[in-house]
Amino acid sequence: MALKSFIEVHSDSHFPIQNLPFGVFKPLPTSPPRPGVAIGDYVLDLSQIALAGLFNGPALNGTDCFLQPNLNKFLSLGRPAWKEARATLQKLLSSTEPTLRDNADLREKSLVPMSKVEMVLPVVIGDYTDFFSSIYHTKNCGIIFRGPQTPIRDNWFQLPVAYHGRASSIIVSGTDVVRPRGQSAPTGSPPVQFGPSKKLDFELEMAVVVGPGNELGKPIDIKEAADHIFGLVLMNDWSARDIQAWESFPLGPFLGKSFGSTISPWIVTLDALEPFACDAPKQDPKPLPYLTEKISKNYDVSLEVRIKPVGEQDSHVVSRSNLKHLYWTLTQQLAHHTVNGCNLRPGDLLGTGTISGPVWLQSFPTFLGSCLKLILLYHVVLNRNRILLDAC
Amino acid sequence: MALKSFIEVHSDSHFPIQNLPFGVFKPLPTSPPRPGVAIGDYVLDLSQIALAGLFNGPALNGTDCFLQPNLNKFLSLGRPAWKEARATLQKLLSSTEPTLRDNADLREKSLVPMSKVEMVLPVVIGDYTDFFSSIYHTKNCGIIFRGPQTPIRDNWFQLPVAYHGRASSIIVSGTDVVRPRGQSAPTGSPPVQFGPSKKLDFELEMAVVVGPGNELGKPIDIKEAADHIFGLVLMNDWSARDIQAWESFPLGPFLGKSFGSTISPWIVTLDALEPFACDAPKQDPKPLPYLTEKISKNYDVSLEVRIKPVGEQDSHVVSRSNLKHLYWTLTQQLAHHTVNGCNLRPGDLLGTGTISGPVWLQSFPTFLGSCLKLILLYHVVLNRNRILLDAC
Repeated sequence: MALKSFIEVHSDSHFPIQNLPFGVFKPLPTSPPRPGVAIGDYVLDLSQIALAGLFNGPALNGTDCFLQPNLNKFLSLGRPAWKEARATLQKLLSSTEPTLRDNADLREKSLVPMSKVEMVLPVVIGDYTDFFSSIYHTKNCGIIFRGPQTPIRDNWFQLPVAYHGRASSIIVSGTDVVRPRGQSAPTGSPPVQFGPSKKLDFELEMAVVVGPGNELGKPIDIKEAADHIFGLVLMNDWSARDIQAWESFPLGPFLGKSFGSTISPWIVTLDALEPFACDAPKQDPKPLPYLTEKISKNYDVSLEVRIKPVGEQDSHVVSRSNLKHLYWTLTQQLAHHTVNGCNLRPGDLLGTGTISGPVWLQSFPTFLGSCLKLILLYHVVLNRNRILLDAC
Repeated sequence: MALKSFIEVHSDSHFPIQNLPFGVFKPLPTSPPRPGVAIGDYVLDLSQIALAGLFNGPALNGTDCFLQPNLNKFLSLGRPAWKEARATLQKLLSSTEPTLRDNADLREKSLVPMSKVEMVLPVVIGDYTDFFSSIYHTKNCGIIFRGPQTPIRDNWFQLPVAYHGRASSIIVSGTDVVRPRGQSAPTGSPPVQFGPSKKLDFELEMAVVVGPGNELGKPIDIKEAADHIFGLVLMNDWSARDIQAWESFPLGPFLGKSFGSTISPWIVTLDALEPFACDAPKQDPKPLPYLTEKISKNYDVSLEVRIKPVGEQDSHVVSRSNLKHLYWTLTQQLAHHTVNGCNLRPGDLLGTGTISGPVWLQSFPTFLGSCLKLILLYHVVLNRNRILLDAC
């Protein structure tokens, strides 16, 4: 029989007892932030569970990681602590376990209606990296910029291409994004224009939240890479295409990206995603040994972008994709990132890059059309441009 | 008469009473780090000066910013606090002021021989950005990659080109750098090679240390930009050219740079550099209004790179340049960085990019030759590749 919580969870909820994503929240606007997990329409306050002495397994006993204003300390403890926390919480929340179910006082203190809380950034992000790991996205971009003959350059098939992004401007879903101003050159050369971006775009991504890091100069072997991944957030890598096109030669995107990047407040753990693991696409050419995995896996996670114009009641689906479309796996991204000795730290964020699917590739003219439509829709919401990032 | 310290300072010292750069140090390997300023062959322990109640002006009275393990809090206080600290310290250290000079106990506690201290990173660096602001460097790179006809693209003359760098791998001068491993493709296409970089290079830069930041969505006006700059460090942006060349299309440098970037332990304040201010080069075309300054200034700071092979006593000068060669000024870089609403935070680092001078441009073949020689020299020191970053 499937594990079930004593808390009622609607069948279409993203937050059954099998998920239990981690986040950081304030019960009241004036409360200090503290870690929580989502269960149905509630947030379970982990600081209260810790104060009640219920994290008493060998990996977590005595730690103050749930009394912190962010998850970085918990993330630094590694998979044994994560597994223990997950097991403890699944047991506490299950319908057959009386400890929390039958303790009215503790329930009152620890279960907060999700509608009342304010979610904040779950981690302090030291560095943010953005990969370019979807072959469909890379091909689409390549056709636009290089034409249909050789849309993808050789290096892309040999390594997960990536660039450093801006960490300071990463915000939690729901935070308003201010329309960026900047330079653009519609013809590709002067005269330049200056003003609010006319080509604001979104990028549907997910991002790895790094657990334990590595020492500078000591690469992480691909065999160990999964143990450095705590979980995944949704990410919207807002992009001002006009600013980006003009500034990017020769060093890559800068102000076209750094005015705000939105992540979901909930981090879905790799452990919760395990039942959705699936084979990653076959890689040809065969990657170098430092990128070769015995079992190369992706995760089958449906992704959807909706836009809700100001004043309208309903949101409109404008894009559907799936995390399983990544060419380079999350573990390959992480191993590659450190192969030169670069050090990761707990809380670092590794974006996948836009996750496009094969449908876009097959109907490319339609994709372009839909792009234009998206830009129009964005114009409607520019002064309060939120994208609905429902946590998965 | 020039201001003089009661502490003897050699005439060729980088640390006269007119400089007083800020850093963070440990008097003993086991001591907690604390802020200090350099004076002659000594470090003045600012935590001791604060505990003695000697920072008693209106901007600093009662603050614990010098009891922190880094300078971020001091930097966040802004120019009034920086000017007050500098004035207080210049007075305390002057030959005519008895407070410290005649207090043997306080001298004993607060003045530590520089040879005995361990310098650590002076700030927690939230984000690191690297600009590309020397026209000579840009032209040299352009000739290599694009040929002598149009070495510099149009966008470079319209905006200070930059990219996000890796913050986690910034290290303080003296820290060993491990030779990075990675992919390269000497012919520009497969087959690829994997192994330790064969083209390790240095880049002579300086970097702005940001003081007060700005809120996301609120650009810093160029008229206010100088008030957000605390000071400058020396920077060596170590680069693995073979890794960089293969990975950089289309998103810019990544692992070719993120294995270690060295900064000097001492931050020279903008106030100390004021006597060295000089006119910046005339910019043609005229920059857009958001980059236009009434007075456009650079600083006349001689820069020198020396290499000291393992086992040799002496270092060899391999490059000489000057900060005054920047085309885009420090204030233009900062204003541009935030024009899209990107938020800076105290302690952020903005590298200038390699500061090449006109000599390299005029004798380009010589420059190439000297480059090769440098690479050879680096091979000698690869297992312990330190570059002497004498603070200026």
